[in-house]
Amino acid sequence: MGDTEGNRAYGRKSFKRSKSHFTDRVTADGRDGWPVESGRYRLVVSRACPWASRAVISRRLLGLEDALSMAIADPIQDDRSWRFRLDPGGRDPVLGIRYLGEAYEAREPDPPGGVSVPAIVDVPTGRLVTNDYQQITLDLATEWTALHREGAPDLYPVPLRDEIDEVMAEVYEDVNNGVYRAGFATEQVEYTAACAGVFRRLELLSDRLAERRYLVGDTITEADIRLFTTLVRFDAVYHGHFKCNRWKLTENQVLWAYARDLYQTPGFGDTVDFDHIKRHYYQVHEGINPTGIVPLGPDLSGWLTSHGREELGGRPFGEGSPPGPVRSGEEVPAAGRP
Amino acid sequence: MGDTEGNRAYGRKSFKRSKSHFTDRVTADGRDGWPVESGRYRLVVSRACPWASRAVISRRLLGLEDALSMAIADPIQDDRSWRFRLDPGGRDPVLGIRYLGEAYEAREPDPPGGVSVPAIVDVPTGRLVTNDYQQITLDLATEWTALHREGAPDLYPVPLRDEIDEVMAEVYEDVNNGVYRAGFATEQVEYTAACAGVFRRLELLSDRLAERRYLVGDTITEADIRLFTTLVRFDAVYHGHFKCNRWKLTENQVLWAYARDLYQTPGFGDTVDFDHIKRHYYQVHEGINPTGIVPLGPDLSGWLTSHGREELGGRPFGEGSPPGPVRSGEEVPAAGRP
Repeated sequence: MGDTEGNRAYGRKSFKRSKSHFTDRVTADGRDGWPVESGRYRLVVSRACPWASRAVISRRLLGLEDALSMAIADPIQDDRSWRFRLDPGGRDPVLGIRYLGEAYEAREPDPPGGVSVPAIVDVPTGRLVTNDYQQITLDLATEWTALHREGAPDLYPVPLRDEIDEVMAEVYEDVNNGVYRAGFATEQVEYTAACAGVFRRLELLSDRLAERRYLVGDTITEADIRLFTTLVRFDAVYHGHFKCNRWKLTENQVLWAYARDLYQTPGFGDTVDFDHIKRHYYQVHEGINPTGIVPLGPDLSGWLTSHGREELGGRPFGEGSPPGPVRSGEEVPAAGRP
Repeated sequence: MGDTEGNRAYGRKSFKRSKSHFTDRVTADGRDGWPVESGRYRLVVSRACPWASRAVISRRLLGLEDALSMAIADPIQDDRSWRFRLDPGGRDPVLGIRYLGEAYEAREPDPPGGVSVPAIVDVPTGRLVTNDYQQITLDLATEWTALHREGAPDLYPVPLRDEIDEVMAEVYEDVNNGVYRAGFATEQVEYTAACAGVFRRLELLSDRLAERRYLVGDTITEADIRLFTTLVRFDAVYHGHFKCNRWKLTENQVLWAYARDLYQTPGFGDTVDFDHIKRHYYQVHEGINPTGIVPLGPDLSGWLTSHGREELGGRPFGEGSPPGPVRSGEEVPAAGRP
């Protein structure tokens, strides 16, 4: 998402996450007019954004780097939302635009719902295809299979989909979006409900993960990706900035080990940029941090410590194998990595 | 202090703590016109305020409850600063005033420097005597001796004063006031210096306290009181609200044990009201928390766990003894206490 909606939502009685406006799908059969095709689309993300980071991780795990190129927006938005200020001349080198909003405008003038990431853009026309953050990763896992790398994992296995969907729905409501409802609350009662819900769900997830390495089945699935993108931001931004401060992730033995296990798995930690994450939240949300000061903490050195989760068994990539090294030019600074 | 200065200071380039304007002293010889006298003065505090809490602790340790009565202000200030909203009819029952500022006005019309706690008020005239937060506790320890309880500790022993003063000066600059400079910073560079200074000093203090039970000598002194009032607020407010978030107090083994040891010592934890502390900081400082939302966390249950510091030896009250039970009507809610 954009978190632009954060500031817009701010001041409303209750934080409501906007539905994605553009819900076309890129599919193997091209039924929405957007067939899977190598080199045709560009994935636009921010490394700050948990919703976009799902797609960054999926693309790595599935080995879609060659088929689907990636544009990385500056973590700080302005009034026109996400910008390509990290690129030479402030323009995305493939799409040639300065603002992601230009691709939205090319699709539909004055698009409602704002400009958000993740977004998939059709390179030949420069038009936005979809900003449907709930569907994009599922389609990468199930529709883009012809372009997956050899050894790509099955992130959404057919026999487990009901269970994965159930877990993801709970995680979405209470955790992924729960931290935002807590953080953007303007009424104490609304905050209290959201924050209590975050920790109630985390306790349940901690119980679930005490004896099993991954959320569903014995391999990494889409459910793990979606929990990870919130957990990896927890102490860095949600604990203080969003006031989800009953305890730090590092204080929950099971979840902290689970998060470290994933962080140290190729395709997860090597996509995480703590600098982008911290600057985005603390500098963009003026409604909750008017000074824009970015905290020095927390100490990130623990992310690479041993986690002991191998003892629980599990086969991270199932019949497949881990992804290779990060594509040149897409490396992130080694925060906590040697 | 008031922390009123917090909002006033906010927007200035750099946070500067106001000097106390009224620096008369209540002494045994009455040289400033204010002789120590049982029942003559009223100590006005807020349990939220770390500077005032020093005096609350000293009064308990020294057994001055009968000699020096205490007024407790509402933790939430308004434009006229500290109010007696916790008392029947919103008036302090002894002074008969609604705002502490009335005692300031009685002393000097339109007093510069604002209204702050701790304050000592002369009951017969209703006039403020002193708001000198650095001197008040030293005078309770050294000038009010005739009224101390039997077994009162020597909180400022003559042979150790140089060392105590040196430690207190470092703790004041980097820790007591350092957290405020971090929290009220409006420039990143200013915040960074203050926050780094807080943790640099805490690391040094942690080294110092690893092998010795108290900061100076082998008994509790004024230096411990002054460090404690910041440490007890650390995770509840300074970590998140003031962005001092390299680590939580609970993550530093030595300081966390040291703070628990004091908290569990009669006269310390039984003066601490976490509800007042949290509501004050989060609701008063609109400049850094515009929503006024008060976080649910942190979990406070750890404050009563065993700390193991007895093994370091030390004689908490030296030749003296612990204070008796809290005076009726001055009990605080048992946050974390059984």
